Amino acid sequence: MATMYPRASSTGATPSEEMNGTGNLMDFLDEPFPDVGTYEDFHTIDWLREKSRDTDRHRKITTKSKESYWELIKSLLDAWSGWVVMLLIGMLTGTLAGVIDLAVDWMTDLKEGVCLSALYYSREQCCWTSNETTFDDRDKCPQWQKWAELMTGHSEVICVFSPTNGSRHGAGAYVLNYFLYVLWALLFSFLAVSLVRVFAPYACGSGIPEIKTILSGFIIRGYLGKWTLLIKTVTLVLAVSSGLSLGKEGPLVHVACCCGNLFCSLFSKYSKNEGKRREVLSAAAAAGVSVAFGAPIGGVLFSLEEVSYYFPLKTLWRSFFAALVAAFTLRAINPFGNSRLVLFYVEYHTPWYMAELVPFILLGVFGGLWGALFIRGNIAWCRRRKTTLLGKYPVLEVIVITGITAVLAFPNPYTRRSTSELISELFNDCGALESSQLCDYVNNPNMSRPVDDIPDRPAGPGVYSALWQLALALIFKIVITIFTFGMKIPSGLFIPSMAVGAIAGRIVGIAVEQMAYHHHDWIIFKNWCRPGADCVTPGLYAMVGAAACLGGVTRMTVSLVVIMFELTGGLEYIVPLMAAAVTSKWVADAFGKEGIYESHIQLNGYPYLDVRDEFTHRTLATDVMRPRRSEPPLAVLTQDSTTVEDVETLIKDTDYNGFPVVVSRESERLIGFVQRRELTVAIKTARQKQDGVVSSSVVYFTEDNPQVAEACDPQPLKLRRILNLSPFTVTDHTPMETVVDIFRKLGLRQCLVTRSGRLLGIITKKDVLRHMAQMMNQDPESIMFN
Amino acid sequence: MATMYPRASSTGATPSEEMNGTGNLMDFLDEPFPDVGTYEDFHTIDWLREKSRDTDRHRKITTKSKESYWELIKSLLDAWSGWVVMLLIGMLTGTLAGVIDLAVDWMTDLKEGVCLSALYYSREQCCWTSNETTFDDRDKCPQWQKWAELMTGHSEVICVFSPTNGSRHGAGAYVLNYFLYVLWALLFSFLAVSLVRVFAPYACGSGIPEIKTILSGFIIRGYLGKWTLLIKTVTLVLAVSSGLSLGKEGPLVHVACCCGNLFCSLFSKYSKNEGKRREVLSAAAAAGVSVAFGAPIGGVLFSLEEVSYYFPLKTLWRSFFAALVAAFTLRAINPFGNSRLVLFYVEYHTPWYMAELVPFILLGVFGGLWGALFIRGNIAWCRRRKTTLLGKYPVLEVIVITGITAVLAFPNPYTRRSTSELISELFNDCGALESSQLCDYVNNPNMSRPVDDIPDRPAGPGVYSALWQLALALIFKIVITIFTFGMKIPSGLFIPSMAVGAIAGRIVGIAVEQMAYHHHDWIIFKNWCRPGADCVTPGLYAMVGAAACLGGVTRMTVSLVVIMFELTGGLEYIVPLMAAAVTSKWVADAFGKEGIYESHIQLNGYPYLDVRDEFTHRTLATDVMRPRRSEPPLAVLTQDSTTVEDVETLIKDTDYNGFPVVVSRESERLIGFVQRRELTVAIKTARQKQDGVVSSSVVYFTEDNPQVAEACDPQPLKLRRILNLSPFTVTDHTPMETVVDIFRKLGLRQCLVTRSGRLLGIITKKDVLRHMAQMMNQDPESIMFN
Repeated sequence: MATMYPRASSTGATPSEEMNGTGNLMDFLDEPFPDVGTYEDFHTIDWLREKSRDTDRHRKITTKSKESYWELIKSLLDAWSGWVVMLLIGMLTGTLAGVIDLAVDWMTDLKEGVCLSALYYSREQCCWTSNETTFDDRDKCPQWQKWAELMTGHSEVICVFSPTNGSRHGAGAYVLNYFLYVLWALLFSFLAVSLVRVFAPYACGSGIPEIKTILSGFIIRGYLGKWTLLIKTVTLVLAVSSGLSLGKEGPLVHVACCCGNLFCSLFSKYSKNEGKRREVLSAAAAAGVSVAFGAPIGGVLFSLEEVSYYFPLKTLWRSFFAALVAAFTLRAINPFGNSRLVLFYVEYHTPWYMAELVPFILLGVFGGLWGALFIRGNIAWCRRRKTTLLGKYPVLEVIVITGITAVLAFPNPYTRRSTSELISELFNDCGALESSQLCDYVNNPNMSRPVDDIPDRPAGPGVYSALWQLALALIFKIVITIFTFGMKIPSGLFIPSMAVGAIAGRIVGIAVEQMAYHHHDWIIFKNWCRPGADCVTPGLYAMVGAAACLGGVTRMTVSLVVIMFELTGGLEYIVPLMAAAVTSKWVADAFGKEGIYESHIQLNGYPYLDVRDEFTHRTLATDVMRPRRSEPPLAVLTQDSTTVEDVETLIKDTDYNGFPVVVSRESERLIGFVQRRELTVAIKTARQKQDGVVSSSVVYFTEDNPQVAEACDPQPLKLRRILNLSPFTVTDHTPMETVVDIFRKLGLRQCLVTRSGRLLGIITKKDVLRHMAQMMNQDPESIMFN
Repeated sequence: MATMYPRASSTGATPSEEMNGTGNLMDFLDEPFPDVGTYEDFHTIDWLREKSRDTDRHRKITTKSKESYWELIKSLLDAWSGWVVMLLIGMLTGTLAGVIDLAVDWMTDLKEGVCLSALYYSREQCCWTSNETTFDDRDKCPQWQKWAELMTGHSEVICVFSPTNGSRHGAGAYVLNYFLYVLWALLFSFLAVSLVRVFAPYACGSGIPEIKTILSGFIIRGYLGKWTLLIKTVTLVLAVSSGLSLGKEGPLVHVACCCGNLFCSLFSKYSKNEGKRREVLSAAAAAGVSVAFGAPIGGVLFSLEEVSYYFPLKTLWRSFFAALVAAFTLRAINPFGNSRLVLFYVEYHTPWYMAELVPFILLGVFGGLWGALFIRGNIAWCRRRKTTLLGKYPVLEVIVITGITAVLAFPNPYTRRSTSELISELFNDCGALESSQLCDYVNNPNMSRPVDDIPDRPAGPGVYSALWQLALALIFKIVITIFTFGMKIPSGLFIPSMAVGAIAGRIVGIAVEQMAYHHHDWIIFKNWCRPGADCVTPGLYAMVGAAACLGGVTRMTVSLVVIMFELTGGLEYIVPLMAAAVTSKWVADAFGKEGIYESHIQLNGYPYLDVRDEFTHRTLATDVMRPRRSEPPLAVLTQDSTTVEDVETLIKDTDYNGFPVVVSRESERLIGFVQRRELTVAIKTARQKQDGVVSSSVVYFTEDNPQVAEACDPQPLKLRRILNLSPFTVTDHTPMETVVDIFRKLGLRQCLVTRSGRLLGIITKKDVLRHMAQMMNQDPESIMFN
């Protein structure tokens, strides 16, 4: 089916009918009989079947293309449609990302104040146009008015970053600002959760677990629909602006996949083939990460490593194209105003030293521990949400968490501002002109100061006060993120995870720096840190910490390092990043193999067959297949002795997706497999249109024409055309390891089990998953060393 | 088998026995019975079987690890051995690459002269130590003496780059230098080809086609052996230094894979499992490209896109690790003396403009045409070499080609120096201090000149003379490369292809630049090229041209762009590179789908099942399976009625790799598959060790104990343990498309064909390949639009 409508989940409200009306245009593009050849909601697709359907379509076009020029052009258009879709996806994703960035900037600042010269300017844009452009005056931009100033008319400037200063200047103004900050946050989050609840229940969360599941061949209708796209985009802006501890990166992948799905519906090549559609969606995911971080190569690798299931080389090229187009569209919009592609652009001036690997690896360990803690805590909380009354009041939950977040975040300058700004500052190297508190070092007045190569200096009071504020921010972020991720609003965890790591990293970095400065005669510092040298870059520690924490949560390695590499643009720092990422993965893996996405997939019980889990148990196909010993025998059809009535009874009594067809019940030799859906349609059609087909008609699956013995016998019903003559079979002695491999690599939906040609049973994807889960729980150590 | 010895190919000489003696150490690590569980030379491995063997091994270790601490430690070591192997591969590959770079530098310069202060210094190293360090004086370094100077004692300096100048100063010296240049070249190439012929015939060529084939599961013993490693490293230096039109990048991949194979033999996990070994080799290939270009990410993508067959995520992480270690080892050696990782480091100062996409795409077309021409020409020449007398005299061929190359190359300064130096100069942007002929622009004396941002200037006489020299060099390179690639010396074609593209690109770049300068009022230049602006960077055109030509020859896209991205280190130029790479791929594909590596695979008839070819024909398994209608029936064994003698006769009369076992000849119901090798060994062992097994003994494959009817009957031979009870089957109606998919994805060696449980025939990988080749020739258009 081409279009996916928003679908009311069991917990969500039903979208009103008028809203659905906009989808009518798409209806014309739909198949006339949507029932044939499609899948039902929450069912698994058969990759092999999709692939062979696409080959048929392709063959038809190729044959036709020889007939006329028009057909040739059509066939060329068809061949190019893949690239066109990528172009469109890239452009729309890039545009949406740009719009989201601009809107978030503006609304985040709206919580604190407003730009008088133009209401739609964010603080930064507002102060660009002001005359005071030096660094020192940047905080005193007259066009930008805090709410308290605007309301009370006091024009005196309250120092932004320090609550103590604020209270000195005017406790009333501080309280007013505080109050309005919380109010705006509550308003934004209330709007977000309400929109999600009313219009698109699928728009909540990060979306990556579901996209992984969808890409592995599961159908969730409406998850990538137009409504989800619209509502997710809007609510993402609201959720991020509300100041909650969440990021926009994961949801951007969801948004990109919605774009992909939207453009798929323009081309029947993609809209009518669930397999081909998934190729496009893989590429869209790459475009999503590409714009989230400004890292096209990292995006492609993220899609390959983390999200995709079936990733042929053709998809690699197309993903790369889509990711590039998206990145360049975003750059054309230029939301960060610095014509940089990347979210956190940094440039460091000093190399790292071997001895620094020790703190880097410690950060890796921290990242791994954080990852394990976060996953455990978050999953426990989400399970509680599912099972207790908590799940019944999602709006209230969001309001309460937003309230707590806003109240606790405002007093601390490092949590008050947006998380990506915070990360950006933490990553930054302290240049000569940096005015931030974190760069408040005691300068040696005698030293001539080149702009780039400032030697290590003792920390000033600003740095020390920043340190304890950062420590408080760290604890706050760690706790609140666990409760935030999984609420009924769009929420990504890249940014909060990176923030946790960046704070920890910066603290460690400053500690190492000060240690190196004050104890440069210690044996470990002696070799690489002479006094007067610039040997420790605290910003690099922040970056390494961010990579470690992100790695601990998601268990990415290569794509993570490549994303970070694209941020810094130098191979120089790959080794620290790699060391931290790998350490954090190992540490986190020791507490549980699954990353956050796999954990959420398990929590929601999606039928996802992970490519990475290795199945190493000794079980055989015979242990897994149905029917078990105690169960009734397999529901089969015979090739020439089942009546229409028998078939109808079988369909009514069972809910299997299909039935094996055997020569006879005695010999049980398998000849094919017939889909339930096609069987139902075929019998219905035959009963309506074909004369003489009655309940007692015999259904024939044989090749030869059945001989009607007597005239009084009812007309037979020949159904060989719907019989799949090449069902997938394995013998009962096949190791489950091989069966799992076959299911994974060929994307099967079911597989029949035979012994010396006799049909014994059937294994479905769900049987495989159930068996794997069972085996894991019995013997979790056996998969630890891969 | 763990070790691979150099193996005499049909055309090569046998390595002497003493030489083989060094391998004895490794022999101790070998299996005592190398016959069981290994494959014969030039056979295909069964991936599923290798995988399940590894799982068994793993399961055994896991079970044992619970028994004692020692076993636990051993199991941990086993789990870590993959990373250790990667570390070792990275370090050895990086070291070898560094050594090769240094040796090539020195020997290339040896052709022209020698460093008096230290004989082992290359020209550049020699002149570093000289006092004259300014750019203008660099060519007049007194320590460096040309051969003619040294011999005739004339201390006057002959201008290096111009033959006309040279003849003015002394025609005799020029002729002497010319003569010695040719002589050195002939000596180097003679040494290279002799070493290859005598010690390691497998060391010739680029090695990538064979490595692709090996990675897809083919066995070529000795191809990755220690001798090949040693000889390829040495002869690579000689071949590159001889000035032939070849590069070291492809052979470096081969060298890296030899390193990988070498370290595999240290760990039984890898040495005894051909599947696991191939995972290591994939990573080694990535390390090879990583050091060839200094592009670790590009290397991993190259391995993924171009070389590897089975590339699980675990291999992705490990490849990345190996590539990084290799790159850092190389940097530690610092062969280019600039602490840069990359081969051609460039930095451009100007952005590119939309209008420039037209010449970039034209360069893409040129690259595609070059690729198609090169592949056709080279394959035709290689075929001629195979079929005519030419192939009988490989040494003579190398000598003649070297002679022609050296004689034609010396007079032209752009072909005389090493190809990578040439590319480096062509890529370079003309800075203010550049002294090369290509940067001989007419400067406006009035203009204040910042170092980086020089406006477009009119070309001086140097540029014009460089242009015609480059044009001659282009024709020379195009022709000579076609004849060079495929000779019996190590030869890569990355560098020659890039050189062709870089020359063409630079010529186009200078043309566009001059057009823009002289006609800046034309409508197309008006918008982006005001007079006095720096709007065209000819070096960028050279880089785009290089990417296009490389893409045309190899059909890489993503990895190519990423390698180029790592060279320039900026996302800025990805769009031009992408446009050129994709155009060149499309243009080249129009003349034939295969890249040079696939063409050589086909030429050599390797059984390589390309992942990229899509099989879109309507044929069924029944059309491909053996036996055909006219052939004798399938050779099968029955489960309880074949005698030992029957089996032995069957083994003697046929050369099949295995035999299906059926219930009885009447019912033909399949119960399993038995390998020829295991059957032979089992019968031999039984005859020797088991009492009562004689020729008339019945071979039983049944589960139950056979009942010996009478006492006089001979003892039965029970062989169920060697029977594979889960042979892979498809029905005769399975579309070949699906069969190809199954072979590809599961890495099967053979597959049995059944109809309703009856065995009909067998399909082997070779049958599939033969059928695919047949279909392609019949109907080549049908695969064009993928």
